[in-house]
Amino acid sequence: AVSVRPARRGWPQLGRLLGSCGTWRPRSPAPERRRPCRAAVCPGRALHSGRPRCQEVPLTCERYGLRRLPFSRLSRADVAFFEGLMPGRALTDPEELRAFNVDWLKSARGCSELLLKPKTAAEVSRVLRYCHERNLAVSPQGGNTGLVGGSVPVFDEIILSTALMSEIISFDPVSGILVCQAGCVLEKLNEYLEERGFVMPLDLGAKGSCHIGGNVATNAGGLRLLRYGSLRGTVLGLEVVLADGTVLDCLASLRKDNTGYDLKQLFIGSEGTLGVITAVSILCPQKPKAVNLAFLGCQDFSRVQETFTTCRAMLGEILSAYEFMDEKCMELVVKHLGLSNPLRGSPFYVLIETSGSNSTHDEEKLNSFLEQATTSGLVTDGTVAVDDKKIKARTWLIGIPLIFVPQTLWSLRERITEALTHDGCVYKYDISLPVGKLYDLVTDMRARLGQSAKNVVGYGHVGDGNLHLNITAESYSHSLLDAIEPFVYEWTARYNGSISAEHGLGFKKKQFIQYSKPSEAIFLMQRFKAMLDPKGILNPYKTLPSSP
Amino acid sequence: AVSVRPARRGWPQLGRLLGSCGTWRPRSPAPERRRPCRAAVCPGRALHSGRPRCQEVPLTCERYGLRRLPFSRLSRADVAFFEGLMPGRALTDPEELRAFNVDWLKSARGCSELLLKPKTAAEVSRVLRYCHERNLAVSPQGGNTGLVGGSVPVFDEIILSTALMSEIISFDPVSGILVCQAGCVLEKLNEYLEERGFVMPLDLGAKGSCHIGGNVATNAGGLRLLRYGSLRGTVLGLEVVLADGTVLDCLASLRKDNTGYDLKQLFIGSEGTLGVITAVSILCPQKPKAVNLAFLGCQDFSRVQETFTTCRAMLGEILSAYEFMDEKCMELVVKHLGLSNPLRGSPFYVLIETSGSNSTHDEEKLNSFLEQATTSGLVTDGTVAVDDKKIKARTWLIGIPLIFVPQTLWSLRERITEALTHDGCVYKYDISLPVGKLYDLVTDMRARLGQSAKNVVGYGHVGDGNLHLNITAESYSHSLLDAIEPFVYEWTARYNGSISAEHGLGFKKKQFIQYSKPSEAIFLMQRFKAMLDPKGILNPYKTLPSSP
Repeated sequence: AVSVRPARRGWPQLGRLLGSCGTWRPRSPAPERRRPCRAAVCPGRALHSGRPRCQEVPLTCERYGLRRLPFSRLSRADVAFFEGLMPGRALTDPEELRAFNVDWLKSARGCSELLLKPKTAAEVSRVLRYCHERNLAVSPQGGNTGLVGGSVPVFDEIILSTALMSEIISFDPVSGILVCQAGCVLEKLNEYLEERGFVMPLDLGAKGSCHIGGNVATNAGGLRLLRYGSLRGTVLGLEVVLADGTVLDCLASLRKDNTGYDLKQLFIGSEGTLGVITAVSILCPQKPKAVNLAFLGCQDFSRVQETFTTCRAMLGEILSAYEFMDEKCMELVVKHLGLSNPLRGSPFYVLIETSGSNSTHDEEKLNSFLEQATTSGLVTDGTVAVDDKKIKARTWLIGIPLIFVPQTLWSLRERITEALTHDGCVYKYDISLPVGKLYDLVTDMRARLGQSAKNVVGYGHVGDGNLHLNITAESYSHSLLDAIEPFVYEWTARYNGSISAEHGLGFKKKQFIQYSKPSEAIFLMQRFKAMLDPKGILNPYKTLPSSP
Repeated sequence: AVSVRPARRGWPQLGRLLGSCGTWRPRSPAPERRRPCRAAVCPGRALHSGRPRCQEVPLTCERYGLRRLPFSRLSRADVAFFEGLMPGRALTDPEELRAFNVDWLKSARGCSELLLKPKTAAEVSRVLRYCHERNLAVSPQGGNTGLVGGSVPVFDEIILSTALMSEIISFDPVSGILVCQAGCVLEKLNEYLEERGFVMPLDLGAKGSCHIGGNVATNAGGLRLLRYGSLRGTVLGLEVVLADGTVLDCLASLRKDNTGYDLKQLFIGSEGTLGVITAVSILCPQKPKAVNLAFLGCQDFSRVQETFTTCRAMLGEILSAYEFMDEKCMELVVKHLGLSNPLRGSPFYVLIETSGSNSTHDEEKLNSFLEQATTSGLVTDGTVAVDDKKIKARTWLIGIPLIFVPQTLWSLRERITEALTHDGCVYKYDISLPVGKLYDLVTDMRARLGQSAKNVVGYGHVGDGNLHLNITAESYSHSLLDAIEPFVYEWTARYNGSISAEHGLGFKKKQFIQYSKPSEAIFLMQRFKAMLDPKGILNPYKTLPSSP
């Protein structure tokens, strides 16, 4: 079992590992780690400004005073075995390993001494069979873009990267089914599909570096979920290597298959703790012929909600995103990133996207909705951008000819995370709630924290009932965290919400699972883990709380 | 382990249990079972004509010479316990039990002596805890409309019916999330939702009697899957009672929840072998404002396919069904049911449905597609029906004013199953294949069987890659079955298809699972079963082949 040094409030202390506090220092930084972060290989380089560099990130195990589980230590013979198995792809240079040991948020760091880059499921199988026999722990890693410390080692686990498993195996333009290796980068898959008239059913801010295998392993949500549903419906098959090296080939390319239990579902969202996903079969929708955006201002959150139900009724099958942000978010993207607000100041902003097969029909539907939304007073201001490719836009309602390409409007929503990192130390929460309750948590939190927080902001996917609650302060403070937690989790549990809507549990949130799952379910999860990975070598210290 | 008397070809003999052969006789029918079937309670009464009555259906265990597993026998004390637990809802009258012992197709019959009708999950829990302690086997049953013998006992298993668990727990018109007990009838849920502007995400021929719990337990597919996806995406939460009586409350009403493994997925499609589903949370789409139908004739299957890709591109987001049937199917519905073919004779017929939010737009899209399909020669004949409610239709292309309400067009496709039962003894297969291969199996089978079959027909869901292959003969014949099996399964396996697309494995197909799943996967399924139900009391003899 994982052992923790007594902390003031016990395990909830884990929540103190937050996104972007610049005050951390490792206890005993090794001299070679003092060199500047090599931006070229650092997956988090885009967000570096004002945040700690790789070598300044504290070791996770030291930060939490964790005790290493009794896995074997890597020996010279082990390294020789792996070098023989995959010459040139078993790396031990600390410089080369640095970026793979630190997470994208620079909030967690392991001290792995071996990075393996297999190319095939057979190689992954041989690696795991060996590790299983030798009792060596393994940390599977995709694009390392996760937000809960799930993709980097906690101690010296061997990093098993899917970076070189990037082959597209097949694509069928009749069914729209893509089969590819786990290390394919999401954006590259999307580009490949767009050339063939299709798109990936998911889209994320991290698309430029995240791997499809990691997306599936974390059950990634993102921006297209409202339209195309979750990966639980679109993933048709998986190839998975189990902890003992067994290759489980469930890589079906069929929309329907009711022959026995759907094993692949257990691996979707299991964060690499039950098996390593090596290939994915996924159903891809057709590329929409027309994409429209509307950016609107609302006077209160009840109008944000009512606008949602109105537009869902009127836009129907072409509604592909309904995102919201509060005025504090707008202030931050304007202040820190220099973006401009296309509307007059409003307490709330809404971004609506339509994707359809007929631009004339879609524009007609959008116009009818906008007319209804304004005449009924749901919306007080707005602008629209039409067509994804051409720089063609028009103002609406304001009377001033503003030109916005759709990406400019999307930036206002997508770059909030980045703006927050410039605002100080950020406390991040990713909550699912009934839509009616979504913003009450922000209001309650703002009232509770008063002057002790710099900003309390809310934004997210209204259509999915998913709130991103972020709290900033000038610097990290224990007392502020005590005011936030466990209040935020208790509040969420009171309304049967989820304490992790799409980010997963990883390392940082695993001890909070009981706020969203009953003990019977957690116990059953632990039994599945024990059955599939009896030695616990796969991504240890993650996802589930330590066994009772 | 289940023991089987040696048969000519061993276990594949199981496949001989087919739909509608009128030649079966039980070996030793009990006198009281000779009375005529009581149509009022017989769930299969609509399909009785020409097929065996309940009392003529052979006992499954006798037909296959199965050996009963060493479960306890029901004692007077057991019955007294259950009568105390649910007075008036623990039934032992053989007359009352008859319809619950026989499946809808009249192809499988058990000899249970006790039927329990719990009303709550707590009651189900107490029943299973008792059965687990006493080692009494249980056969969970919903609407008993399954096609693979999964919903009736094989021996004397206690029948646990969800018939009285029919409460709607909540419906949220903002999110469209419905929470209800497992025994709610699908059609009644749909009616409830339609009054509120929503529909169920699934629709089946058996909707008038099937239970939502059974739908989920069998991962039912049906007619709306092309549009709304599978239950793996739309089911958001489940309440399940495990074999030992533990209540697993994963009844979340959230679109997103990434806190730990998604346990509910294991129960979706597990056919009651891992737990008893007692409540369901499901995401429901809005009711479409406009529904259009087109019924078209194609000259060959490659045109059926090309028409599909064309209409998917042109109808895009409003395409809600794409079904096909061959000319033999049309002959049968005309001959046996007296329906009339609205088109000139064609080798293939296609039924296309659109569902959208704007009737003008939808009609425009449909018309553009139809123009394209005819001018390019994909389609040679057709008729359309517009609007779901009003009797308003128009002819197209033929020049003769035919009036068809949409249901008339749907009947041609939906009543094929019924027409087949009038054509003789039916050998039924439910196959998933890559769309390009879909009809080749019918052609190959027809060539292979030649004059030994009466009719070899193919129909199904092109959009889902799902073929219903049916073979009829005047009477049941071993040699004909030998010509069909294992050929049909080997053929399917060669193209990586599924031997059960949507019907499940139940009792009849469990021994064929290896044609669609590798041994590693089957072994893992057996381990899950052993972990969750160590005594094997839940729906024994079903879904998985006997343990190795």
